[in-house]
Amino acid sequence: MRDLRKEIPCLEQLGSLGKTFSESCLEAGGALAVDKGSHPSKIVPSLEEAIRRCGLQDGMTISFHHHFRNGDQIVNMVLDKLAEMGFHDLVLAASSLTDCHAPLIRHIQNGVIRRIETSGLRGKLADAISGGKMDVPVVFRSHGGRACAISQGELPIDVAFLGAPSCDAWGNANGYSRDEEGGILCGSMGYAKCDAQYARKTVILTSHVVPCPNVPCAIPSTDVDCVVEVESIGDPAGIMSGATRFTKNPKELLMAESAAEVIAASGVFHDGFSFQMGSGGASLAVARFLGEKMKAAGITASYALGGITGSIVDMYEAGLVRRILDVQSFDLRAAESLKQNRFHQQISAVYYASPKDATCAVNGLDTVILSALEVDTDFNVNVLTGSDGVIRGAIGGHPDTAWGASLAIVVCPLVRGRIPCVVPKVNTLVTPGATVDVVVTEYGVAVNPRREELRRRLERAGIPLRTMEQLQGIAQQMVGKPDPIRYTDKVVGVVTYRDGSVLDLIYQVAD
Amino acid sequence: MRDLRKEIPCLEQLGSLGKTFSESCLEAGGALAVDKGSHPSKIVPSLEEAIRRCGLQDGMTISFHHHFRNGDQIVNMVLDKLAEMGFHDLVLAASSLTDCHAPLIRHIQNGVIRRIETSGLRGKLADAISGGKMDVPVVFRSHGGRACAISQGELPIDVAFLGAPSCDAWGNANGYSRDEEGGILCGSMGYAKCDAQYARKTVILTSHVVPCPNVPCAIPSTDVDCVVEVESIGDPAGIMSGATRFTKNPKELLMAESAAEVIAASGVFHDGFSFQMGSGGASLAVARFLGEKMKAAGITASYALGGITGSIVDMYEAGLVRRILDVQSFDLRAAESLKQNRFHQQISAVYYASPKDATCAVNGLDTVILSALEVDTDFNVNVLTGSDGVIRGAIGGHPDTAWGASLAIVVCPLVRGRIPCVVPKVNTLVTPGATVDVVVTEYGVAVNPRREELRRRLERAGIPLRTMEQLQGIAQQMVGKPDPIRYTDKVVGVVTYRDGSVLDLIYQVAD
Repeated sequence: MRDLRKEIPCLEQLGSLGKTFSESCLEAGGALAVDKGSHPSKIVPSLEEAIRRCGLQDGMTISFHHHFRNGDQIVNMVLDKLAEMGFHDLVLAASSLTDCHAPLIRHIQNGVIRRIETSGLRGKLADAISGGKMDVPVVFRSHGGRACAISQGELPIDVAFLGAPSCDAWGNANGYSRDEEGGILCGSMGYAKCDAQYARKTVILTSHVVPCPNVPCAIPSTDVDCVVEVESIGDPAGIMSGATRFTKNPKELLMAESAAEVIAASGVFHDGFSFQMGSGGASLAVARFLGEKMKAAGITASYALGGITGSIVDMYEAGLVRRILDVQSFDLRAAESLKQNRFHQQISAVYYASPKDATCAVNGLDTVILSALEVDTDFNVNVLTGSDGVIRGAIGGHPDTAWGASLAIVVCPLVRGRIPCVVPKVNTLVTPGATVDVVVTEYGVAVNPRREELRRRLERAGIPLRTMEQLQGIAQQMVGKPDPIRYTDKVVGVVTYRDGSVLDLIYQVAD
Repeated sequence: MRDLRKEIPCLEQLGSLGKTFSESCLEAGGALAVDKGSHPSKIVPSLEEAIRRCGLQDGMTISFHHHFRNGDQIVNMVLDKLAEMGFHDLVLAASSLTDCHAPLIRHIQNGVIRRIETSGLRGKLADAISGGKMDVPVVFRSHGGRACAISQGELPIDVAFLGAPSCDAWGNANGYSRDEEGGILCGSMGYAKCDAQYARKTVILTSHVVPCPNVPCAIPSTDVDCVVEVESIGDPAGIMSGATRFTKNPKELLMAESAAEVIAASGVFHDGFSFQMGSGGASLAVARFLGEKMKAAGITASYALGGITGSIVDMYEAGLVRRILDVQSFDLRAAESLKQNRFHQQISAVYYASPKDATCAVNGLDTVILSALEVDTDFNVNVLTGSDGVIRGAIGGHPDTAWGASLAIVVCPLVRGRIPCVVPKVNTLVTPGATVDVVVTEYGVAVNPRREELRRRLERAGIPLRTMEQLQGIAQQMVGKPDPIRYTDKVVGVVTYRDGSVLDLIYQVAD
């Protein structure tokens, strides 16, 4: 038997069994059969019990998703419980944080949270961090960068706490419900899928336990360790806007029409092309203008990606889009479509944008429409800090899609109120200008000098072109040159690129 | 900065960059942007090239699925290529092997294959192995045991070679096609899903490259490294039987009706119950009888699991089954249903039956109908070796479902021709009797003495009961007592239980 044991690891146990196989295994079968057919469940009686079962310890990393947006109640609920249980020095790795997470300030002050990883920050929490309230800087990652760091073990998650609008006793979790009771709705759970797959332990929190098996679903039961039923996981009003609203702002309509013209003239506008659009007013309007051009040209898109809105669903249902790949549903119509339309599929953040996967979905994009807080004369984009240097945004998939798309278009007005948006140099670098192809403003379109052929195409199509320097000059004429922001030398944020390299630092704003 | 670097690993690189962040990253962005928007593909020009890119070396483990059944061409094609390339000492870990894999005998003799892991063996390859042609015994695992061993790292796969009826350039692979060209069909790719997820490298072989994105699909592109287009991956005639065929054999019909009566009387027959049936003639007939009882009682099943046949699809389409969880489609009608019916979902082998997941789907089963080559008076079952001791079967999900189901029913005739099937002791132990609740034969039903309450229920329902000893006695009266099988002392097979423990050994049959 010695040779066999070297070859076949499972034979190692033969010695310890110490008798012939059938006999010992009959006994084992007998012992094993005690729990036979007991229909196990992953539901545990309380959040506290789930935390205990997952073996969470001080200093570990916990994760959350942001599919409930400003209606999220999970992050605050879990952190309150962890504080109550006496945990310290935790790393909070959320896919994003926003206004409703202001209560975290207390947990930072009390040492429950030692450091934070996120795509973005807004509101009072962002103000506190920009004001230097944390000892350790926040690490900002793009959606693709975060997915990559998690899947490659650079950002190992100990316990993921994931809210789900429906979940069964096995742990099959989803962003909508199919039973008649309804419940809340968040649509795709793309960021949560990634966390559930790679976390050491995954806890689903739900207000709506449904019968087994809850399929199709976002998170399969195989990725789940505990299910906790709670009174409420999110405020429906904050989770989703009810309807897609088209802009009536003439400046936004003008820019949207320009962007659609740029796409049509760029060379990527062919049958089977693919696109992503953002959720802002201008982006929604681009979808409408682009749809009209597609109908006129008789072409359809192979897929629409992203952040999905009702505008995209309209295009799908009109037969203009063959597949929707949805990492995050932006409105109620998108969430309902995910439930009803078979070729509207939810995808994980890894599938969406991980730079370690050569064929991640962003890398197949022909074009993307992006917004900006600031864009500079080198085409660099800032979507993270305001003109006062304070954090008030999120990286999202901005650098991922700009990198992946053949044609990355940034739509940005020259000024917002008295604030210039086309500037000599962005406050915070989020998306390198080398990956941005076109900037569309209400005063004209600028093409990245690296894209000479594209410039010629747009010129031939009669699109009025300007240089970024010209656009920046106009902006400066309109609102003048703002005073420089005053910072201290304390670093409060580290901006990483999609591959994890450091792109920029954010400093504490001086009072 | 020193403290920051201790806290945040990505800051380690700051020193090596040696300049301020924005500047260095602009340069990095420039360099990165060379391939921007290039629409990458995972298609490689040849199988040989894919093997090279995956870094396969002598002694490594390669895996295959058996969704093409006896029509499979992938295993032989890949092994021929590996032999041609001079590889040696490989571990072949297939989800199962069958008659069409006889050409592997040559690769065993030439040392290309050092050892084999599989669920089953049939035909000339099985004969050769039972005859002692391999130096190292074959390790047999159940579908759940294999999935568990792979997912837990006990059976690490270096390169998975997975045939797929459709695949796109990203690597999204599926068991059917949606474009008009059609192509071959295997339905669910549940065993392949598990391999693709856990293998170090995954190669998809397909005869049908389809446009991106090929979604919904069995294997997401994130789990795939290379795609190879080949002339042919399987013989459609061998992959699937065209239609579900009901038995007209009166013995099988009698047993099927008994099995349905046992279910109805057992206590598990309630609204929302769950079941799995095999693919044999008797199992198909059970589905028909059970469906009639469900209609009469006005109840529906929460899910049907398994190994899916057209009979199950009929029940789904008649509204008797709410969800189909499909790890393997047994016939054309099941495969077509997977494509058309939204709540007919393909599941991975881990989801199906991994014993490390408390809520794997088999553990939620109320009842399962199983077949047997032999069952003994202790309710132990053999589905692997024939009455001559030669390997001619497969473990499949037998021990997994028997363990998981509240009511595991083995349907087995007393004799097949002159061969007794109810015996004093099985030749090879595959499913421990402790997990088998009822044996149904054409001469009556036996209840495991461990299930006293069940026995009383069946008695009250007027089902004629016998002991296993009585049934074995009748069988012996009918065909006598066979001569004992003569073995050598060479071990040719190791039968493992679902948790990886050794259950039994198979010896070389003496000439």
